[in-house]
Amino acid sequence: MKHETNASEAWHDVLRANRESSLAELIELLKIPSISTSEANVADVMTAASWVAERLKRAGMENVSIHPTGVHSCVYADWIHAPGKPTVLIYGHFDVQPPDPLDLWNSPPFEPVIVDGRLYARGASDMKGNLLLSVLAAEAVLAAEGKLPINLKFLFEGQEEIGSRDLGPFVAGHRELLACDLVLTPDSMQWTEDRPALWMSTKGLCAIQIDVETAAMDLHSGLYGGAIPNAAHALVQLLNSMRDCEGRILIEGFYDQVVPISDVERANMAEVPFNSVAYREQIGVDALVGEPGYTTYERAWARPTLEVNGIWGGYQGDGVKTVIPAKAHAKITCRLVGYQDPDALLHCLESHIAKHKPTGARVTVTRSVGKARSYQMSSDHPGVTAVAGVLADEYGQPPYFVRIGGTLPIMDMFLQELGAHTIPLGFGLDDECIHSPNEFLRVANFERGQVVYARVLQRLGESLSRSAQAIQ
Amino acid sequence: MKHETNASEAWHDVLRANRESSLAELIELLKIPSISTSEANVADVMTAASWVAERLKRAGMENVSIHPTGVHSCVYADWIHAPGKPTVLIYGHFDVQPPDPLDLWNSPPFEPVIVDGRLYARGASDMKGNLLLSVLAAEAVLAAEGKLPINLKFLFEGQEEIGSRDLGPFVAGHRELLACDLVLTPDSMQWTEDRPALWMSTKGLCAIQIDVETAAMDLHSGLYGGAIPNAAHALVQLLNSMRDCEGRILIEGFYDQVVPISDVERANMAEVPFNSVAYREQIGVDALVGEPGYTTYERAWARPTLEVNGIWGGYQGDGVKTVIPAKAHAKITCRLVGYQDPDALLHCLESHIAKHKPTGARVTVTRSVGKARSYQMSSDHPGVTAVAGVLADEYGQPPYFVRIGGTLPIMDMFLQELGAHTIPLGFGLDDECIHSPNEFLRVANFERGQVVYARVLQRLGESLSRSAQAIQ
Repeated sequence: MKHETNASEAWHDVLRANRESSLAELIELLKIPSISTSEANVADVMTAASWVAERLKRAGMENVSIHPTGVHSCVYADWIHAPGKPTVLIYGHFDVQPPDPLDLWNSPPFEPVIVDGRLYARGASDMKGNLLLSVLAAEAVLAAEGKLPINLKFLFEGQEEIGSRDLGPFVAGHRELLACDLVLTPDSMQWTEDRPALWMSTKGLCAIQIDVETAAMDLHSGLYGGAIPNAAHALVQLLNSMRDCEGRILIEGFYDQVVPISDVERANMAEVPFNSVAYREQIGVDALVGEPGYTTYERAWARPTLEVNGIWGGYQGDGVKTVIPAKAHAKITCRLVGYQDPDALLHCLESHIAKHKPTGARVTVTRSVGKARSYQMSSDHPGVTAVAGVLADEYGQPPYFVRIGGTLPIMDMFLQELGAHTIPLGFGLDDECIHSPNEFLRVANFERGQVVYARVLQRLGESLSRSAQAIQ
Repeated sequence: MKHETNASEAWHDVLRANRESSLAELIELLKIPSISTSEANVADVMTAASWVAERLKRAGMENVSIHPTGVHSCVYADWIHAPGKPTVLIYGHFDVQPPDPLDLWNSPPFEPVIVDGRLYARGASDMKGNLLLSVLAAEAVLAAEGKLPINLKFLFEGQEEIGSRDLGPFVAGHRELLACDLVLTPDSMQWTEDRPALWMSTKGLCAIQIDVETAAMDLHSGLYGGAIPNAAHALVQLLNSMRDCEGRILIEGFYDQVVPISDVERANMAEVPFNSVAYREQIGVDALVGEPGYTTYERAWARPTLEVNGIWGGYQGDGVKTVIPAKAHAKITCRLVGYQDPDALLHCLESHIAKHKPTGARVTVTRSVGKARSYQMSSDHPGVTAVAGVLADEYGQPPYFVRIGGTLPIMDMFLQELGAHTIPLGFGLDDECIHSPNEFLRVANFERGQVVYARVLQRLGESLSRSAQAIQ
C-alpha cells in the first residue's frame, strides 16, 4: 500500500551520494568513548557534544548551542523557517554505556569494525547510529529542497545512560526554546528486519523498601521459637497479603486509576506474534502466570504490576543456624498504567502495610526517590498515523503497535513540560547487544533510517499542518 | 523440708579441707585452652583429656582410659564395686568454645582471675567447673567412706562444643563399658542463685533448605513483570502456607505425634515465675505471639515449632534494581516434641511443599544432616525424685521443673544406646556469659555443686537401689 505523496524525493540522491561519508562519520563519532557514568570520560562526553554540535551546524541547523547541565552538557539546534507549519523536536543522546566486560568483545568497543554488514562498536545501536541518521535526513532534505517542510529542533543530551537527571530541569527551564508540537526520538528500535513497530506506551514506576523488625537481635529458635514474632514470617505474611496466588494485586485502591484496555488496543496487541513456547524457553520459565483475563502481552505491556525485587533476612550462609530473624527486608516496585499516580500508589501501599502489619512487627516503609508516571499515546494520533504510514511504505507491512512494560520518564516529562507527545522511531533491533559486549548496528538499517526520517519530516509537514490543533 | 537421711556426711569435711586446692585445680584446668573447633588447639584438647584422666585416677577411679574418637579423645573411668546397687554415668566435656572476640574480655580468657567471688575464664561455667565438682564429690565420698554408695562411671568428651559428632558411635560401640541405670550431666545450670531447677525435656530438631527457581536468570520487571512467576513471590506463598497468622503450623500431619501437655506438666510450668514485660523488654519484642491456647513457656518449651531461620533472593543492595528474582531461598527448622520423628516430619514438610508448590516454581528441598528426636523425662522418675529432694534440701525450696526448647541430642542418644535417662544437674547460672566474652562461674556454686553431687550419689544409692527396675 504505497502512500500517495507529491513530495519530491530529491533528498534521496543526496543520501545516496553521501552514503560512504555518512558511514565514515558514524565511525568517527563511535570512536569517541563518551561513557557518561565514568569520571575518567567526562572530557570524552564533551568531545561527543562538540562533535554533534559541529555536525548539526554543517547540516544547516541554526542556533547550535551547547548547554552545560550538571556533569555533562546537552546540544541544541534548530531550523525554524516554516511559518504556519508544525514544529518537531528530535531528542536523543550521545553518551554510551560502559563497555565492560572488555574481554568479551571480539574487537575493541571504541574501534568500530564492519563485519557482514554489521557495524560493531559501543553506542552503534544505542544510539549514535540512530542519532546521526536523523541529522543526515534533515540535512539531505534541506540540501535538496533548500528548506524543510516543518520547523525542526534537535535536543541531544549526554547523560541518558545515567538517568537523565538534569534533563527535566533543563527542559523546564527552556520551554520556549524547546516548544514543539511533537517529539520524535530515534532512541528506539523496530520489531524485526522485516517488520516495523511503534511503541505506544510506557509504564510508570514507584518503589519502596519494607523493613520489618520484631526483636532487638536474632534469637535462638530453641529458646524463643513459637513464642515471639519472627521477622521473616511477618514479612512473608505482609507480602502475601499484597498479591493473590494468581497475580491479582490486593492493595486497596491499586486499580482505581487504571484505564481498561480498549478493544482497539487489545486488537493491536493481539496482532503481535506470540509464541509462548519460544517465549518461555528463552527465559527458562515453566509457566506463564499472571492476572486472569489477560494475555501475556496485555499483562506485561498494559496492566499494572507489583513485583518483589529482592527479599532478605536472617541466616543465609551454609548449613543450619537456628535463629529467629529479628529483621527482614523486601524491595518492591510497581509498574503503573493509565492515570495511576506514583505518589497516590505509594500512599495505597503504605496504608495497606499499616493495615496488614502482623502483630509484634515494627514495619518501616521507605519510598524510593525514583518514580515516574506512565505514558500513553493513542494510535489514532495524527503524528502516529503519519509515521505509521511511512513505515508501512518502507517495509511493505504496517507497524505493530506495541508497548513498553518498562519506564521511560522522558516521554512523560516532554508531555508535562512541552505539552507534546513523543513517538519513538529508531532502527535498532533487539538482538544488537545494547548495554552488552559486541553491540552492533546493521548498516542497512542506518541507511533505511535516514530515508524513513526524511519521509517522516515531509509527511508530518503535510499531515500535521492540517491538524496542528489536534496534536496537543 | 529436710530429707531424712542416715547417711554419713564425713565427705563434707574432705571437701572443706580441700577447698583451696580444689579451686587451684580448677584454675589449672581452665588455663588449658582446649578449644575443640580450632586446629591450632588440638594438642591442648589432648592435654585437657590427660589432665582429666589423671585427676580421675587421683580421685580413686579405676579403668581410667583415653579413647581417641575422630579429632579429639574422650576419657572414661569407673568405680564399680557396689554389687546390687545401681550404676550412674556422669557425662560431661572438657573442651571449650573459642574465646573470640578477645578484645571484649576484661582479663585474658585462659588466665583465670577471681573478682568478687566470680571466677572468670573461658570454660569456667561451661563446663570445667561443673565437670570438676562432680569428680571432687565422688573423690570425697570415696575418701571418707572407703567406698561409693553406687557404681559410678565417668565419660568426658572433647568435642561437645563442635557437636559431639563422634560421641554417638563411641557410645554405641561401648554399650557394655558404659552400661548404666541413669546418666547425670553437670553440663547444666540452676534457675537463680536461690532457686534450683531441673530440666525435664528437650525438643527434637529437623531442618530443610527450600530453593525456589522460576526462570533461568533475573529478568527485567518492566519487560516481564506481571507475566511470569517471581521466585520471591512463589517462596512467600509457599512459606505463608505453612503457618497461620497466629502461629499454628498448617503442615498436614505436623501435630500427629505430639503428646498433649499433661495437667501436671502445665502446673509445673505455671509454677515458674514469668514476667511478660521483663521477658519482652530483655529481647526487644513488642508482643508475645504464638499458638493460641498455650502460655509462653508452654509454646517455647513444650509445643512443636516451625521457624524460618533465613530468607533471601533477588536484589538486596542499596537503591532500586527492577528485577524479577529467578531464585529465592529459605532455611527452616522445626523443633519437635513427644513422639514426633524427624524423618517423618521431614516427609510431612516435603509433601506439603509438593502440594503447595506455586505454578511455575521449580522447588528443591534439601534436608539438613543435623536432626534429633525430642527427649522427655517424667518428673516422677525415681532419679528425678532423688535429685529434686537433694536440691530442695540444699536450697530450701524445691526445684522448678523446666524444659529446654533447644536440642541436646546426647540425652536421646544415651536413652537409645544405653536405655538410661539423663538428669542435667549443673551449677551455672544463665548470666555467666557462656559462649561469650567474660565467662565466669560463681565460686560459691562450684562448692555448693560438690556438696549436692555428694548427696545425690548417696541419695541415689538409697532410692535407686529400691527401685532399680523402675529406672529403665
